[in-house]
Amino acid sequence: MPKLRISWKEYGRRLEATKAFLTEKEMDAMLVTGGVNIFYLSNFYHMTTERPAALVVPLEGEMAFMGPLLEVDHLKHQTQLVPNVYTYLDYPGETHPIDLFAGWLKEMGLGKAKIVADNPAGAAGGMGYEGPPLSEKMPDATFEKLGRFFWDMRLKKTEEELALMRESAKWGNLAHRYLQEYTSPGLWDAEVSLMASAEATSIMKRTLGPEFKTVKGSRAASAGFRGQVGWKSAMPHCVSVTKMLEVGDVLVTGAGADVGGYGSELERTMIIGEPTEKQRKYFDVMVRSQDASIEALKPGNTCADVDKASRKVIIDAGYESLLRHHTGHGIGLQGHEPPFLDIGNPQVLEPGMVVSIEPGIYELGYAGFRHSDTAVITEDSHELITFYPRDIDSMTIL
Amino acid sequence: MPKLRISWKEYGRRLEATKAFLTEKEMDAMLVTGGVNIFYLSNFYHMTTERPAALVVPLEGEMAFMGPLLEVDHLKHQTQLVPNVYTYLDYPGETHPIDLFAGWLKEMGLGKAKIVADNPAGAAGGMGYEGPPLSEKMPDATFEKLGRFFWDMRLKKTEEELALMRESAKWGNLAHRYLQEYTSPGLWDAEVSLMASAEATSIMKRTLGPEFKTVKGSRAASAGFRGQVGWKSAMPHCVSVTKMLEVGDVLVTGAGADVGGYGSELERTMIIGEPTEKQRKYFDVMVRSQDASIEALKPGNTCADVDKASRKVIIDAGYESLLRHHTGHGIGLQGHEPPFLDIGNPQVLEPGMVVSIEPGIYELGYAGFRHSDTAVITEDSHELITFYPRDIDSMTIL
Repeated sequence: MPKLRISWKEYGRRLEATKAFLTEKEMDAMLVTGGVNIFYLSNFYHMTTERPAALVVPLEGEMAFMGPLLEVDHLKHQTQLVPNVYTYLDYPGETHPIDLFAGWLKEMGLGKAKIVADNPAGAAGGMGYEGPPLSEKMPDATFEKLGRFFWDMRLKKTEEELALMRESAKWGNLAHRYLQEYTSPGLWDAEVSLMASAEATSIMKRTLGPEFKTVKGSRAASAGFRGQVGWKSAMPHCVSVTKMLEVGDVLVTGAGADVGGYGSELERTMIIGEPTEKQRKYFDVMVRSQDASIEALKPGNTCADVDKASRKVIIDAGYESLLRHHTGHGIGLQGHEPPFLDIGNPQVLEPGMVVSIEPGIYELGYAGFRHSDTAVITEDSHELITFYPRDIDSMTIL
Repeated sequence: MPKLRISWKEYGRRLEATKAFLTEKEMDAMLVTGGVNIFYLSNFYHMTTERPAALVVPLEGEMAFMGPLLEVDHLKHQTQLVPNVYTYLDYPGETHPIDLFAGWLKEMGLGKAKIVADNPAGAAGGMGYEGPPLSEKMPDATFEKLGRFFWDMRLKKTEEELALMRESAKWGNLAHRYLQEYTSPGLWDAEVSLMASAEATSIMKRTLGPEFKTVKGSRAASAGFRGQVGWKSAMPHCVSVTKMLEVGDVLVTGAGADVGGYGSELERTMIIGEPTEKQRKYFDVMVRSQDASIEALKPGNTCADVDKASRKVIIDAGYESLLRHHTGHGIGLQGHEPPFLDIGNPQVLEPGMVVSIEPGIYELGYAGFRHSDTAVITEDSHELITFYPRDIDSMTIL
């Protein structure tokens, strides 16, 4: 049975590292309002809304949560790592939640504390939230910005994290297989995407069994085009397109799955109908560019080195003007994370980092060509965790 | 043919109102990094990522966009309201985008300007983005926080906005119908949701025709349970559940559709199998509570009045301890917006405001009961734009 979540032991290590950071920085507590990082420390995931919610990690003692009642119910069900709970019914309420937060932090003995916070406002904000900054309500406390702590800790994945991401890649592969099978002229991108995602999600649940649930949304496994269909395949991050699929269309896909909150990224260029010479030429350069960046994936190389390797193939082919983005990005709990494989990024690759490898070329008004695979940097090289065919014959839908 | 997007004329009015605000506040320009508000002013929607992107609204002259090349392609395709474009290949790049932004703003003649910004950092941030604040790079300019400007402008919907939301409600209704039809013991919540969403999305596209596309994602119409299944129906915002649907389960649903970026909210409590006496009792109190809040929806009443009306029914029935949230929230371009129908909110209801009406009661470990409808405040009362049955017989799946 594959592991479907991070172990409590690993959560323990994360908490230890957080307390070590507090000690080093001579801080009394950490305040976290970012939903992903609250999950990273506690295994409690919630939909961040206008309702303020924060995790408190004191240097001494156990973690506390301050938040709306409906999230406290989830917290109690999802984790035992946060025994101290302070709650309010809803926002804005008769007393503003930030006033309550200030009072509760004082109750915790943190009224005059040095607090490092991802957001000194005390709330993630958004959706029309308004409120005074927490710091204003706690004049005797000191607030410092957290900075890169979580990004640094999340940069190199542990064996447990990698296991979840490998499992994610398997189901992304299945979703993509259905996407390819269902792709047919006369259908709309969104409906093919939803049919493939429904099929793969259903099989994933039946395979992984009664313990499996998604963390972040209702698609366990998913695949789609995000609007990169026909001439719009030249425009990444399209979201949606108006036209139906047709013979002659180039399609740029995306697939992944949610395993314990972790993801993976598999993207392919597919062509409906016999590829033209021009399509073959672009496809070939794109694959060779991806090959070159994969070749450069090893400890000691920088992120810029990898971007340069893929760019060189594209530039040598005479297609520099068809570049629309860099080679890739980190991935893990979020779809985009550091490190960014960008010509301007001197960061050195180290074992455990996980990145998407996705150089692309895009001729506006005509079509775009991009594959994306997910790779782990290993001790001496890399491991590709996605494993879908990359050649043009396999990617042609006749 | 129903209208599928906001007219250019209405975008013109939004821009006028923005410039009037700048004049009133004696500001030279507005800088907007929030994706929804960029869309609100320009009809250009993009997925906000680590790549900085900002819309500039100068008091004099036309709008400008500063952002990554791949988004500029979309901008040019989606709008003609933003003729001035400044772009970079990717983040972080050899020169940091914020340095470029500072240079471009100087080019625009705003180097010493008074700039009101939703985010003086100059970037929406997130996904591991890091960079210096724009204000630091423009020492001769003055930056002020934007505050509630967009929320105030978006609070009362125009006729055009209401037309899109009514259209959204129709398709949410269809998606919910499929959700109810597909709901069956032995299936998983996520798969029923995806099947219903695929079916409704497909029909919506075929009905609305070649001009229709989604703005925000790949589900045109969607319906699901978000994990509120069985005893977990007592926990709103559940995301997902491990167990399959069974006879005896109470289900709390949600449905809507994306029409020109606008949404609607339809939620229902459904029961698989003959309802028990206890289920009937809770269902009845919930419906009467919703009736009471709907009754209170009229201009002149406050948001608190509406919340009090629904609470009174629940408290009178002896279920105060089963409350988990307030009566509702505003809705429009975002799923949650002001005004919040909360006991602590003295805001007076005015014609054009649109709110969800969704009081609920939740017995932890047993089940939850909530319907949600979307209502527009009218000159003398309200209009419900969702229209799905609310009675227990219609909501029973035998």
